[in-house]
Amino acid sequence: MNVDKILPENIKRLKPYVAGKTIAEVKNKYNLDTISKLASNENRLGCSVRVKDAVLSVLNNIQDYPDPVAQQLRHAIAKRNDIEESEVMLAAGSESIISILCRTFFKENENAVTADATFVGFFVQAGVQGIALKKVPVTEEYKFDVDAILNAIDSETKMVYIANPNNPTGTYLTGEEYRRLIDGVPEDVLIIADEAYYEYAVNTPDYLPALDYRKDNVIILRTFSKAYGLAGFRIGYAIAHSDLITEMLKTKLTFEPTAPAQAAALAAYDDIDFLSKSVDLVNEGKERLYRFFDEHNVSFKPSISNSVMMILKDEKAAINFTDEMLKKGVILRRINAFGLPNCVRITIGKESEMTHFEESFKEVYRN
Amino acid sequence: MNVDKILPENIKRLKPYVAGKTIAEVKNKYNLDTISKLASNENRLGCSVRVKDAVLSVLNNIQDYPDPVAQQLRHAIAKRNDIEESEVMLAAGSESIISILCRTFFKENENAVTADATFVGFFVQAGVQGIALKKVPVTEEYKFDVDAILNAIDSETKMVYIANPNNPTGTYLTGEEYRRLIDGVPEDVLIIADEAYYEYAVNTPDYLPALDYRKDNVIILRTFSKAYGLAGFRIGYAIAHSDLITEMLKTKLTFEPTAPAQAAALAAYDDIDFLSKSVDLVNEGKERLYRFFDEHNVSFKPSISNSVMMILKDEKAAINFTDEMLKKGVILRRINAFGLPNCVRITIGKESEMTHFEESFKEVYRN
Repeated sequence: MNVDKILPENIKRLKPYVAGKTIAEVKNKYNLDTISKLASNENRLGCSVRVKDAVLSVLNNIQDYPDPVAQQLRHAIAKRNDIEESEVMLAAGSESIISILCRTFFKENENAVTADATFVGFFVQAGVQGIALKKVPVTEEYKFDVDAILNAIDSETKMVYIANPNNPTGTYLTGEEYRRLIDGVPEDVLIIADEAYYEYAVNTPDYLPALDYRKDNVIILRTFSKAYGLAGFRIGYAIAHSDLITEMLKTKLTFEPTAPAQAAALAAYDDIDFLSKSVDLVNEGKERLYRFFDEHNVSFKPSISNSVMMILKDEKAAINFTDEMLKKGVILRRINAFGLPNCVRITIGKESEMTHFEESFKEVYRN
Repeated sequence: MNVDKILPENIKRLKPYVAGKTIAEVKNKYNLDTISKLASNENRLGCSVRVKDAVLSVLNNIQDYPDPVAQQLRHAIAKRNDIEESEVMLAAGSESIISILCRTFFKENENAVTADATFVGFFVQAGVQGIALKKVPVTEEYKFDVDAILNAIDSETKMVYIANPNNPTGTYLTGEEYRRLIDGVPEDVLIIADEAYYEYAVNTPDYLPALDYRKDNVIILRTFSKAYGLAGFRIGYAIAHSDLITEMLKTKLTFEPTAPAQAAALAAYDDIDFLSKSVDLVNEGKERLYRFFDEHNVSFKPSISNSVMMILKDEKAAINFTDEMLKKGVILRRINAFGLPNCVRITIGKESEMTHFEESFKEVYRN
């Protein structure tokens, strides 16, 4: 069978998925005892201790399908954010919600506007649905360029996607910039405000959470995969006008997210202490890393998320640095797929992991 | 904002999701102590005892993203079925795999051929992607009509979907019929053989598993949601030619299924004893229910899955019967959405649940 012949063009253009190396594989290959996984912006502290009991209690009825709307969790999220339950949708992580957005709203030939250096998940899901992307260059400060984005919107634009704070850059739009964006987008164009790193960002003085300046065309994405430490469970949520949520629920897979994920997220959502501890660890780790980079004359972007972006001189230097760090057991993320081939993203980990990073860095980094 | 104006036509046509009543809601509403949930073809025995420890061990690293290809489980499935790992894809249940199929293979204006009385999940996912469905009436025996399906295939047909055994009817294509279907479908048309109930069906003498008569255009779906009792985890798999799997992996969400689901399924897959016990329970329960229905002159279809379909005189009778049974604490499934408004599907449960069914039936059923 000639698979190429039967495929749509947009699927042919997608790159095949290549799985990264597991921790076990890295250990074996380089004969290492200690691995510091600083590649995927996961919470290196783990997750709340309350998760275990919550999951155990769900296992007693694991033969049953999950609650399709995650009623209890939906209620808790609505309550904490002072919104209606009908304005909340739970799904299997931000990637799934982005897929839902791409499946729900686009008519033929409509496009989406975003930056050229942002979350690769949006690029991929748009590609899966054959949606044309207008990628606007980020500013010299690696920020979303508000004016250029507004200029890129045309009569066929259905959606503007921003991540605030942005991933992989850790940069953000100030309140003034964010308001200007929201005010400038036509009201029949949807604005996706991806706040995957909200919990790390929220106390930054001039950061404006999308919920605090909301219009009917704004869809906010948040996740339990980052500060809550539940990436393995795949669970996140969208906040939007209930008319939009109603449509999104039509295309969501009926039974996502899973039953254990719902229980785990509900338990984790209530553990404010673990959350503060996680945010504090990241703030201390960032200060330490900034000092270290300054001492070693490394270019980087200060970040309000849980990762810091190193800027190397070119793609070759970025490849070489990550490869050499890997041999020392420090797994980092090149972000060429995110549009920044000369940059490397470093997740802020525990003290011991940051020490591992620094010591390995000193051995392999060449300016 | 006028949501209707911004929506594509196929999304407007989808019905809004309406969540069913939870067990707790039914208990409260009708002031009941005992509920028998015989509505969703779940395994009423629960799942393997091995699942708990497997999930607990994964919780230690739940902050990390899942293995995107579920390597260990993929290996186990390939080995047991004597195929290559590259011929297996794990995903978040059959509904997710059907969504992946709809996202991956359809060009504009291509259609899918299936029966008018089969798994509603296929109807829904096709609707989400705006795929035209050619629904062929089932035979008088409530079976897929092989000749009519072959006749319905036209130059724009991309896919033929069959469930074997079929859901919700419990009927199946014999080996001879299945071969005739496979041989009659053009080689550039994909055939989806949904075997969600494979484990219940496999010992039926004239049932032919799709793996035993395989061509390059056949994609087999199996699940851990039924006989393995893991519906709450959302995990299933596709078996197909590796060239097809490569394309499907491009549109699968990167990190589905979840890490705990992978671990649970791997543990459950090895527990052959629990599986036999589950299948035996269903076989005994079906024999008992057939006798009961015969005694009460109820029309039904003998089934090779874990449910039995009752045939009532009209839709009103089906609505009335399920409503009255609900008041007694027996949750059943009307299957109007599956194309059979005058029928009710009964999941085979434990002895006590089947007794609950029989006793309630005697009080509410009017011929």
